[in-house]
Amino acid sequence: MNIILFYPPEVELPLSHRDPRARHILEVLRRTPGGVFDVGLINGPRGQATLRAVTDEALVLSYAWGTPPPPLAPIRLIIGLPRPQTARDILREGAALGIGALDFVLTERTEPGYAQSSLWLSREWESLLVAGAAQAFCTRIPTVQHGRSLGEAIAALPGDHARIALDNYESPGALSSLALADRSAVALALGAERGWAPAERDLLRAHGFVFAHLGERVLRTETACIAAVTLLKARLGLL
Amino acid sequence: MNIILFYPPEVELPLSHRDPRARHILEVLRRTPGGVFDVGLINGPRGQATLRAVTDEALVLSYAWGTPPPPLAPIRLIIGLPRPQTARDILREGAALGIGALDFVLTERTEPGYAQSSLWLSREWESLLVAGAAQAFCTRIPTVQHGRSLGEAIAALPGDHARIALDNYESPGALSSLALADRSAVALALGAERGWAPAERDLLRAHGFVFAHLGERVLRTETACIAAVTLLKARLGLL
Repeated sequence: MNIILFYPPEVELPLSHRDPRARHILEVLRRTPGGVFDVGLINGPRGQATLRAVTDEALVLSYAWGTPPPPLAPIRLIIGLPRPQTARDILREGAALGIGALDFVLTERTEPGYAQSSLWLSREWESLLVAGAAQAFCTRIPTVQHGRSLGEAIAALPGDHARIALDNYESPGALSSLALADRSAVALALGAERGWAPAERDLLRAHGFVFAHLGERVLRTETACIAAVTLLKARLGLL
Repeated sequence: MNIILFYPPEVELPLSHRDPRARHILEVLRRTPGGVFDVGLINGPRGQATLRAVTDEALVLSYAWGTPPPPLAPIRLIIGLPRPQTARDILREGAALGIGALDFVLTERTEPGYAQSSLWLSREWESLLVAGAAQAFCTRIPTVQHGRSLGEAIAALPGDHARIALDNYESPGALSSLALADRSAVALALGAERGWAPAERDLLRAHGFVFAHLGERVLRTETACIAAVTLLKARLGLL
């Protein structure tokens, strides 16, 4: 946690000792009354908080807000719903990398039961985004959709995005050397752990996706996401 | 496990049911006598195995060997010893990415106790390399050193490697746009979780390291490794 993030309504109230952020302030940052530390409002400005008092129930904080951090990267990931532990890594590290939007879609080869994980049925997915943003010293969290079909996700794509699908098996060229033309935003589609089905490849091609690979080594889905987003950020001049 | 890897002496003997690879062959790949599957000899050729028989004690296999996979990437990572769980991720994903060598060094800001983890005192570190190679459908595993000082690791570096140190705070430019001149191999130094100490920055500079950053977002060490190695592989024409 390199910056402590709050939703706007939270800064109106004292911070209960039961909140993990209170323990972090007292036990990791070791702040005592008068001490300051970095804070941010989710999707808002960064700033500094001062610990004013520690009562039996809560921490009393005051805030001085600065300016918001730069926007997230104009990269939208469409990804076949992976097993929950993989999705957790992608949510947290995707937010840390500053991906603008993540769209976890049902595909022919996804396991439908994964959509019933507590990750998605509770707000756990959102807490992972906040953790990733806090790691990256950013306040902005990606927009997330989950449970749509691949077709619905494609239909919702803005028209100005370059469209790239990762595929180890049917790609003519490498993502690292793909021409982005003059596009300044990218939609990147990754299959589920078991890859795209033939009808999905047809659907992607029919909607303007070009196929690219990440080399001949087979990477875990979460590692492929980090590698692909890093290459795209470099290609977009954001690294 | 996209390919099942064996050390050379292992293929002389039947594979005990107690070996996790035996369970993988029977329960995940669901092979029955006569069935074939992809195998490799560690640091040797890939090939195909045939399940000849299943006895009460073991699986009897025969092998047909092909050619070895391409060499690993000429990238040597020098990394401040991180907490064991982070080191596990770096070992496994570093092997999957095909890094040639990993050198976990003690630095001023590493926690010396991390070197006493069972990860390093047992052979667990080696099993993670094999798991990463098997994920990547490769037989080659990186060379690993652990427990040397930063100075010893630098002294052991070949002279032909470009020398780059990642640093969020004192870097004039981005890794993605750093000139590699005509170097075809790279040594990349990453600080521990708490970064480089001033004397270590001086030491690195005195030995020809140039400093580079990965952007203004602060990434977890394991994510920074994946991102940096991906950029270097692309720069070296290996992606």
